[in-house]
This record gives sequence, C-alpha cells and structure tokens, in this order.
Amino acid sequence: MPDTGAILLEKFDSSILKDNPLGDPSLREFPVYFPPSYDLTDKKFPVVYLLSGYTGKGIMNLNITFLSETIQQRLDRLISSGKMKEMIVVMPDCITRYGGSQFINSEATGDYEDYLIKELIPYIDNKYRTIDNSNSRAVCGKSSGGYGAVVLAMKNPNVFGLMCSTAGDMYFEYCYLPDFPKFVIDIEQYGKGAKAVADFVKNEFNFKQPKPKSFHNIINIIGMASCYSPDARGSKSKGYNFDLPFDVSTGKLDTKVFDRWLEHDPVRMIDKYISNLKKLKLIYLDAGKKDEFNLHIGARIFCDKLKKKKIKFVHEEFDDGHMNIQYRYDRTFEMISKFVKT
Amino acid sequence: MPDTGAILLEKFDSSILKDNPLGDPSLREFPVYFPPSYDLTDKKFPVVYLLSGYTGKGIMNLNITFLSETIQQRLDRLISSGKMKEMIVVMPDCITRYGGSQFINSEATGDYEDYLIKELIPYIDNKYRTIDNSNSRAVCGKSSGGYGAVVLAMKNPNVFGLMCSTAGDMYFEYCYLPDFPKFVIDIEQYGKGAKAVADFVKNEFNFKQPKPKSFHNIINIIGMASCYSPDARGSKSKGYNFDLPFDVSTGKLDTKVFDRWLEHDPVRMIDKYISNLKKLKLIYLDAGKKDEFNLHIGARIFCDKLKKKKIKFVHEEFDDGHMNIQYRYDRTFEMISKFVKT
Amino acid sequence: MPDTGAILLEKFDSSILKDNPLGDPSLREFPVYFPPSYDLTDKKFPVVYLLSGYTGKGIMNLNITFLSETIQQRLDRLISSGKMKEMIVVMPDCITRYGGSQFINSEATGDYEDYLIKELIPYIDNKYRTIDNSNSRAVCGKSSGGYGAVVLAMKNPNVFGLMCSTAGDMYFEYCYLPDFPKFVIDIEQYGKGAKAVADFVKNEFNFKQPKPKSFHNIINIIGMASCYSPDARGSKSKGYNFDLPFDVSTGKLDTKVFDRWLEHDPVRMIDKYISNLKKLKLIYLDAGKKDEFNLHIGARIFCDKLKKKKIKFVHEEFDDGHMNIQYRYDRTFEMISKFVKT
Amino acid sequence: MPDTGAILLEKFDSSILKDNPLGDPSLREFPVYFPPSYDLTDKKFPVVYLLSGYTGKGIMNLNITFLSETIQQRLDRLISSGKMKEMIVVMPDCITRYGGSQFINSEATGDYEDYLIKELIPYIDNKYRTIDNSNSRAVCGKSSGGYGAVVLAMKNPNVFGLMCSTAGDMYFEYCYLPDFPKFVIDIEQYGKGAKAVADFVKNEFNFKQPKPKSFHNIINIIGMASCYSPDARGSKSKGYNFDLPFDVSTGKLDTKVFDRWLEHDPVRMIDKYISNLKKLKLIYLDAGKKDEFNLHIGARIFCDKLKKKKIKFVHEEFDDGHMNIQYRYDRTFEMISKFVKT
Repeated sequence: MPDTGAILLEKFDSSILKDNPLGDPSLREFPVYFPPSYDLTDKKFPVVYLLSGYTGKGIMNLNITFLSETIQQRLDRLISSGKMKEMIVVMPDCITRYGGSQFINSEATGDYEDYLIKELIPYIDNKYRTIDNSNSRAVCGKSSGGYGAVVLAMKNPNVFGLMCSTAGDMYFEYCYLPDFPKFVIDIEQYGKGAKAVADFVKNEFNFKQPKPKSFHNIINIIGMASCYSPDARGSKSKGYNFDLPFDVSTGKLDTKVFDRWLEHDPVRMIDKYISNLKKLKLIYLDAGKKDEFNLHIGARIFCDKLKKKKIKFVHEEFDDGHMNIQYRYDRTFEMISKFVKT
Repeated sequence: MPDTGAILLEKFDSSILKDNPLGDPSLREFPVYFPPSYDLTDKKFPVVYLLSGYTGKGIMNLNITFLSETIQQRLDRLISSGKMKEMIVVMPDCITRYGGSQFINSEATGDYEDYLIKELIPYIDNKYRTIDNSNSRAVCGKSSGGYGAVVLAMKNPNVFGLMCSTAGDMYFEYCYLPDFPKFVIDIEQYGKGAKAVADFVKNEFNFKQPKPKSFHNIINIIGMASCYSPDARGSKSKGYNFDLPFDVSTGKLDTKVFDRWLEHDPVRMIDKYISNLKKLKLIYLDAGKKDEFNLHIGARIFCDKLKKKKIKFVHEEFDDGHMNIQYRYDRTFEMISKFVKT
Repeated sequence: MPDTGAILLEKFDSSILKDNPLGDPSLREFPVYFPPSYDLTDKKFPVVYLLSGYTGKGIMNLNITFLSETIQQRLDRLISSGKMKEMIVVMPDCITRYGGSQFINSEATGDYEDYLIKELIPYIDNKYRTIDNSNSRAVCGKSSGGYGAVVLAMKNPNVFGLMCSTAGDMYFEYCYLPDFPKFVIDIEQYGKGAKAVADFVKNEFNFKQPKPKSFHNIINIIGMASCYSPDARGSKSKGYNFDLPFDVSTGKLDTKVFDRWLEHDPVRMIDKYISNLKKLKLIYLDAGKKDEFNLHIGARIFCDKLKKKKIKFVHEEFDDGHMNIQYRYDRTFEMISKFVKT
Repeated sequence: MPDTGAILLEKFDSSILKDNPLGDPSLREFPVYFPPSYDLTDKKFPVVYLLSGYTGKGIMNLNITFLSETIQQRLDRLISSGKMKEMIVVMPDCITRYGGSQFINSEATGDYEDYLIKELIPYIDNKYRTIDNSNSRAVCGKSSGGYGAVVLAMKNPNVFGLMCSTAGDMYFEYCYLPDFPKFVIDIEQYGKGAKAVADFVKNEFNFKQPKPKSFHNIINIIGMASCYSPDARGSKSKGYNFDLPFDVSTGKLDTKVFDRWLEHDPVRMIDKYISNLKKLKLIYLDAGKKDEFNLHIGARIFCDKLKKKKIKFVHEEFDDGHMNIQYRYDRTFEMISKFVKT
C-alpha cells in the first residue's frame, strides 16, 4: 500500500438546486479523497460524507493553516497508522447565500437533503468504486455538519447506516434561543423592525469588510430561520423569505414560529424516528464541555433520550469549546472504521 | 431649608421572618433617609421604598466608592436642585442566605412580601411622619429590586401607587434560561446531580475565598429557584428546599418547574393584574441596551403588553449594561417626584 | 477576653496636607480597629497600618458585600482563632482627587509620606496605647497599598519594622507600561494631545455616570504620573501638574520621564535601601499567578534581587488574579503576628 | 482585456535555505498571480511581493472563507475596476518551524532576506516578463509581513522602490514586551526555566490538538527570538538556538538581549537607513486604531520620525483591530498603482 491517497476536485451540476430561491449556483465543486489503495486495486470502498459547519463548504477542508494537518495529511495518517480503514471521503458543498442549508429541504434555500440523497450520492456511487450500501456509508460533520449528519441519518437509515456528530446543533432552547435577544439589538444598526432585516439580507451578504462583531450572530439566526421556518411568499411582503422566531422589535418569542424550529430539533425528532434510529450501526456524538453554543448539553439530552428508548449510541465529552475542533475528526473516523462494513 | 437630610439606621425585629426556613435573622438593620426639612417642620412626607438587587441589602447603599456619591449625597443633591421632592427613602433588608428573596413570599426563604407590606410599612408609617397613602408611596429598585418593585406594586396597588424598575428581572426565557446550561457544567466541580447541589448549598454560602468565576451564576439560579419554585420538603429528600427548572445532569428543561417560574414573570403576571396596574399613578421602566441579562428586552416586551392593554407607562433605554447603574436612580426619583402626591 | 473588638471612626486634620496642590481635604476620617482586650486592660498593643489600593481609602474597608466578612468580623475571627495577635489596625485615608497618593511625597498631590510618618503615626501613638517601636509597627496593603507598604518600610525602617505587600505595584515595565498605548487611544475621545489630558483632568474626576470602559486606565496613568513625575508648574502651561511618560499623540516613550518613574520602582529602590531592608523583621510579598497587572512577575523580580542581596523575605504565589483579594489579609495578619513584638 | 488573471503555483528550490538550522524545506511552493493581459501581450509588468504574517505563508492566500474574496477575485476586481494597475503578485513562502522568519537573515532560522533578494527575485525576473527595476517592484504585507516590507525596503531600496505596511510590527516595547510576563507564566505548564522552553521547542511545534489558549503567545515570542536574538550554539547548551529577552523564571528583562531585538525595530532602524528611505517612491503605513498589538502606535511613532527626517510617507488609521484585515490590501494595491512605474 502506498503512503498517500489523493484528493480530487469534483464538479457536479445539480438539477434539484437549479433555480433555487437564493440564486445560489447549481454547479458545485467539492473535494473527494481516495484512499491509497484506490488506484492499485479494483476493490470497492466504503464512503464517508463529511459535512461542513455553518458558513463552511467542503472545499474549505483544503485550507492550509500553521500547525494543522491538511485533510489529506490527516486521512493518510489515520489510514497508515491503522486507525482508519481505507474509505472514500466526500466533502460536499451545501452552502447557501445565507451561510448554510442545514442539509435539509427548505423552500427558502433549496432542497439540499434531496440534492445529497437523490443526486450526489447516486452520482458518486455511479462514478466511483463505492460499496453502495447503508452499512458502508457514513455521514459525519461538526457543528451544523453534525446536525446534518444526525438528521440525514435519522431520516435516511437506508442510505446512511453510520452517523457521527461532532458538536452538532441540538436542543434549540440552549443553542439558538440565547442569541435571539442579541439579534434584536444587533439588527438595530441596520434600521427598524422587518425593514432592518430586509435591508440586511439585501445588502450585507457580501465581501464588504470589516464586518461588525455582531455580524456572525445576525447571519446565524437568519441562516437557521431560512432552513427551519421558511416563508416563500415573504420576499414580496417583507423583503425576506423566512420567519423569525421572535418579534424583531421587542424580542418576544413567536412560539408558533419557534415550534416550527423545534420540529427540526434532533432531540424532538427522536420520537418520530425511533425505528429508523434503531437501524443505524453507529450513533456517535461528542461535544466540548465548554461549547459556546451549549452543544454538550444538547448531546447529553439527545443521548439521555436514546438511552430511555433503548437505542445504542456512543457519547463522549472533551475539554474544549466549539472552535478549532477538526482534530476530533480522528475519533470520528476511528469510530466509523470500527463499525463500517468493508 | 437646610442643605442636607440625614440617614438613620433603623432596626426592626420581624415576627413574620421569625423562624424562616433558611435561618436568616428576623432582626434587620436598614437605613432610612430623611429629607432636609423633616426635622424643621411637622409636615408629613411621601415615602419611597428603594429595593436592592440580588446579593444586596439596603445598608449596602452606604458603601463608599471612588467618584461615586453616597446615597445621602445623591438624595441631598436631587432635592436641593429641585429635581426631587422632599421624601423619606427607606432601604429595606430582604436578603437571604441564598442572596435574595425577590421580595415575594416563598416557603423556601420566608414571606418577604408579607414582611414588607404587613410589618415594615406599618412600622415606618407608625413611627415617622409619612403620608400613609398609596398615592404618596412609591417602590423602586434595580435588577432584582426592580423586579420586586414591579411585582409588589402589581399586587398591592393600594399600598404602592408608584413603581419604578431599573433593569428589573423579566421575561425569564431571556434573563435566566441562558444561564441554565452553564449551571449544569459549573456545578460539576462540586459533584454529580442533586448531590452536588446539596453539597454546594451546604458548604459554599460562606466567606471562603476566592470564589470561582462560576460562583455568581450558580448562586443566582439557586437564589431564583428558592423564590420561584420552593420545595419545602426537599430539604430532607435531596438536601435543598427548592426545585431546579432543569435536569441537573443533562440540563434538559423541566417545564413543570419552569412554568412555576413563569407564573412569577412580570410579563405573564400582567394578564392577572390588569385592573391593579390601571390603578397605579406611575409605571416607569428602564434598562440599558447592553444589559447582560437581556433586561432591556424584558422591559420592551413588558411595555409592549401594557400598551396593548392600554395601561400608561414610561419606558426608557440607555446606552449601558447591567452593572454600576445606580446613577439611574436620579431618573427614578425625578419620575416619582413628578407623580407622587405630597 | 471578649469575642469582639471595636471599630472607631477617627478624624484628624493634617497640617502637612493643608493647601495641598489638588485641593483635597486636610481633614480625613478613617477607621481604627481596637482588639477585644483593649478596653479591658491597660496593656499596650502593636499597630498595623493597612493601606488601601488605588481609588481606595481606609473607610472603604467598612463597605458591606454579600458573602464577605466585614473588616471587623475578619479581625475578630483571626484574633479569636489565635492566628492573629491582638493588635490595633489603622486604615488611613491617603486618597487624592486623582485616586491615590502612592503614600509618597509629590509636589503634584501632597506630602503623603510625611503625613503618615510625621503626623498620623505620632497622633495615633499619642492618643492610644500603642507600643511605639518599629518592631511593633507593621505596614501592609494590597495593590497600591502594597506598593506603599514596601516603599514606606524601605525608607523608614525605624518606623515600620514589618512590611507585607499583597500584589504591590512593582516592575513598572510590566505593571504600567503596557497601558501607555491604550491611554493614547482612550484619551482621544476627549480631544487631542495635552489639551485632551487637561480637559479630562478638569472635567472627568467627578460623579458623572456612566464612565466609559477606558476610564479606569486613564485615571490610573494620571494617578501614577501625579505621584511619580509631578510637574508643579505644568498647571499653568498645559493644564495639569504632572508629566506623562510618553508622547500623548504618538505614544512614544519619554524615557526621561519614565526614568523618573523608575526611581520609584521598588525593584530599583532596593539598591539604594539595602541596609534599611536588612533592618526589617519581616518582608512578606505575595501575588496571584494571574495578576492582570503582572504583579506576580514584579514580586518574583523583587524577591530574586533580595535573595541576591542576602536579605530575608517570604514570598508566596496564589492561584488568582488582582481583584477581590482581601481574603489574603488573613495571611498578612498571620505573618505579622509571627514576627511582631508584643 | 479579459476579465480575469490567473494564479500559478510556483516551486523553487533554494540553495540559500539548504540545510537551514530548523530543518525547514528548501523547496517551497508559492502562488504567483498574473494579470489579465499577461498572456495576451508580450509586455513587461511591475511585480508586487506580498508577504504573509507570522504563522502564514503565501499559499494561505488561496484559503477560502465565507463572504471573503479569494486573492484572485480581489486582484481581478481591483484591476478591472481600474483601482489597480496590471501587475504580477508574488506570494512567497518564508515560514519556518517556529512560525516565521520576519524576512530577515538569522543564524537560528535561515537567511530569508538573502533568499528573497538574491534568489527568489532573480528567479522571478528571469522566468517571467517583469520590469526588473526598483521603481517597478513593490513589497507589502500585513503584520509580520508588514514588518518584512518595511525592513526589506529600508535595506534594499535598489530592489524595492515601494513599500506598504499593513499593521507591521514596530515599536517593540509596545508590540512584544507586554507579552513577556505572560510567557513566563504560560511556559510553566511545560516545566521550569530553560528546560521548559527546550521541551516546548522540542515537543509542541506539531499538529497535536487542542492547543491551550496560551499557545499563540508562547510561539510568537519564540518565533521573534529566533529572528531577533539567535544563539546558534544554544541548541547544545540549553536545547534551543535563541536567547529570550527576559529571565524565564522571574520575567526580568534581559536588556542585553532586548537591545538586540531593538536593533531590528523599524523605528530604531530609521536612523541608520535615512538615505535609503529617501530613495523610496512610496512609503505607506496603516494600522487599526484597536490593534491588539498596539501597531497603530508603532506606525504613529515611525511616521512621526519620518516626518522629522523630512521623508515622505502616507499614513492611515482605520477603525478596526489586528485580525481579518486582508481587505486593507485594496488600499495597498491602490497606493502601489499610484506610484509604481509601468
């Protein structure tokens, strides 16, 4: 076996994303990692879909920073050390103008779940020597990518038989709600009420720099609202195609809208998808005990519920926050390697 | 009129607080301010009850810090400048072992509302030349003292005809809930689950220093729980006499307990006390636009609801956070002076 | 022996501070603690002078805060537990309009060293039953009070035979210099160059609230400059009577002025006062390992130099920062009790 | 003219960096941008050398992040909008094991100034259609890259006729010294004294994650020491080949070593290179007024000195800190375009 695999930049033009509501490109470029033996044999390999967090897309895994391995170095090292089985790793691009799709269908952003399940996976399976079977297909990711992994596997256990979430979004009362009152104040620098949101949506999703400190919080709420509470007709009436789960002026929770969010909360979704969850070969969740978005708490609640439903899972906590946690992918790939069918 | 009033340290031994559940003293010492003319005339004066925030008590108003007026200097200046009418200002002590009573009755702390309404006010009215009439009696305070002002006036409009809240606690989803997940992690340094809380309650409310950074958050939640969700029998079973509004291990919200909290949320209480609120001569709320506990958002929601109920109020926001906001008392005393009956 | 001593509020009108350059009062009020046996015997007692930090004065030791002992409770407890000998504790007022005198003579603030050494100590020794001997007289304090203790004892070993510094100011390159560039930017909100400083000095040392976050840094530099690099004639030419150790516009260090500061740096003063330091019965320094002003580093450098000069000392570090460290007074009084002559 | 230029990944194997002290590769890969017309004409173009900050190298300019232009998008936009002339932009790799070379020669890291001046520039000029003249060759960069620009142009005015510094390191008392006391405490988690530094140097410059918060401060000081105060023989005696400008145990400044640093401080170097500086066609410096390393202060002092020496320069400040300031490259390329000879 040679020491190193290879990264290939794939391009795929989606029919499902054609004419998506935000005008994002249907043609996406994304990296695929092929393990060292891929070119030397005609074996088939398991596939891992590695989902990026909010504001991320697959290609950013190729970014280079000091004292960090590139994704290829990481995967090569894991494989050559025997911690990881030889697997293909696909790093899709599901980003939107608002920073992310949460990997679900939304009439405000596009049908990203369908894009992945109905187009991208078949495309990969068709083009490359994959083992086209849920027991050999895993989904994982961090932050919103962890959320995507949990939700996609929950809904599509026949596609993904293994799921790993590194600090995935869950328990929305703790990971999103505390930022609602900040949004109310932050958005005021752009004007009043819905008009301010409309102006922000129209003018601020661009390269203009410097961004105010509050920028990330504003776009995060907007990004999530576009996924969890789309309002397709909103564009005309108020200038943006989603509902916010609170009154923009007073901050008062809009429980009707927030309930729509909660329908997408993995912790709540468990009840609906128990039989699906039981089909999974691997459910692995981790989070840092200082996660700034309380996702360690979310994972605890999620796992506690799985336990009560007698669903098997692995749960780990580590002494860290929410940022710079790519190193936890090591553990993800180890776990997948343990349970994946080759 | 002389330039300066006088502060007198009062002592009062309460029957209502006798044998309170936390073993706090029934005898309390607290300052009373008498305006410049008090000793020169036999006039009667309006009375303001100035309530302290969580971990505070009246006597702390006498603390001296650099470039801050003493409470006497402040009141003297306000009166001599004509911004404030001559009034008696009572600064009660309603603190508890857990840091505060929220000025309400609780089987976990004691009946502090009764103490104020049934004992302290009659005692003051009896002993000093006050105008014993709701139109001449105001209640105000900051933070938990603002909460107390709102709730006491809402429930006792025949006692307090004027109420001012400086950054008072309200809209509990934003002012308390974001700290629940932090509590879960913070308490782990003391052990596991209810046992950790019991150990904390037993061992940590003392002079031991230094306190960890998380200390204030832990006691704040405990303090509020002792007021909003007492559990008198809990002492025996779990080692503390209150319920927490979340699972101590996973952090999951306990909605039954949190609903008990919400019954004490001023924003919710409005519905029950509309006719009382209509009786008030003055409802004044303010908060800083950077309030770390989101109390500016709480005030907006509260006032928005008053508006819908056609109840008159004055609402102000200022460019500041939650700390070191005693200077806003100036505005409080101005507003009271405008509406109080002399 | 009774359980509790007593605090008395002393008043003393100073001749030395009469007509001081900042117009601060010559009449100062300050607390004195008398140990339990004082009134029961006619014994004489050792005296500790407890110096306050910058922006502090003795009377602030009487401030009351939640879960903190009052100074009287602390001293009573230490004495009754046997950790502290019965001693008189004097808490002087050496504050100035600019926040503090560093307990030294300065033509910009007044002669506070002389005030303490030549007036206050004789006054106390004359009025109360003290043991009027350096072996029975200690000086201690935290932050600028620690600085004062070190410098006063260094210069006056025949007055103070024991000295304790809790996080005292020293090694000015690390405790002050890093704040110079911040000052340059912070002062710009008040105007340009020397004019901005003059305007600040004229208008901002008052009760006006809220203060900007940068306020403390600005006054700290001004306070220190008024002590270390006074410029008596400056008032007329530039509107303030001190020199800043850097160019107010560019921030460039003014080494001539900074050298004047360094003459007051305890670390440098050692060389000049070796024989004095050798006379002291106790030299005790501590600091927290997270001290925001790097005073743990200062203490290390100071003690390292003492060691090289073969001067005895006790040095301790604790796991804490610079704030809320009054609890370390316990250790101070213990150490003094060990070495003081009774 | 077509709309877009092109990025080419160059590789160059250096003789000068061969067998450098840190064992860093002599073969470096780095991006070169060619303007839209390059392939359509046989014109020669000016060249800009864009230097990366500490822990950076040229290839990182290709990293992709949300709502940021790629370097190619930026340069294409600037050229097509007419703000920037068509120029070749070279983004060299001068990183070292310790995070950076400061673009100078050091016996602890390697001769990076020589590498750039004697090898890389001739290689580029030889291989591509550049205008090989100082009036057509600029150097710029941010942070340590800004430092490199200033120092390289100062020393080599016949190579670089234009220089731009975006928040370049200067005035070492403010940009480095405040971090020395932090280093002393931070390094203690790795052991005591020089041994701790040796162990850190040996074991911590790797991919291991998570890094403690203090990591960046430690490596920054080490990185600078390896450039400013190399000690080639140190490797054997103490385990690392540089001197620290302070005592590792007490933190006391080692003025001999710090003086060696100061010889590399652009603010001091001015005196030595006045005639060189006068040769430059463009000296442009900027910095953010909230720069966390006080580099706005450094720039002010630098420019003030230029002014006194009657050397022309452009100085700008912006309302921002030290991070995410690539957007200021727009201004850099505008300024260069104004003064560069085409």
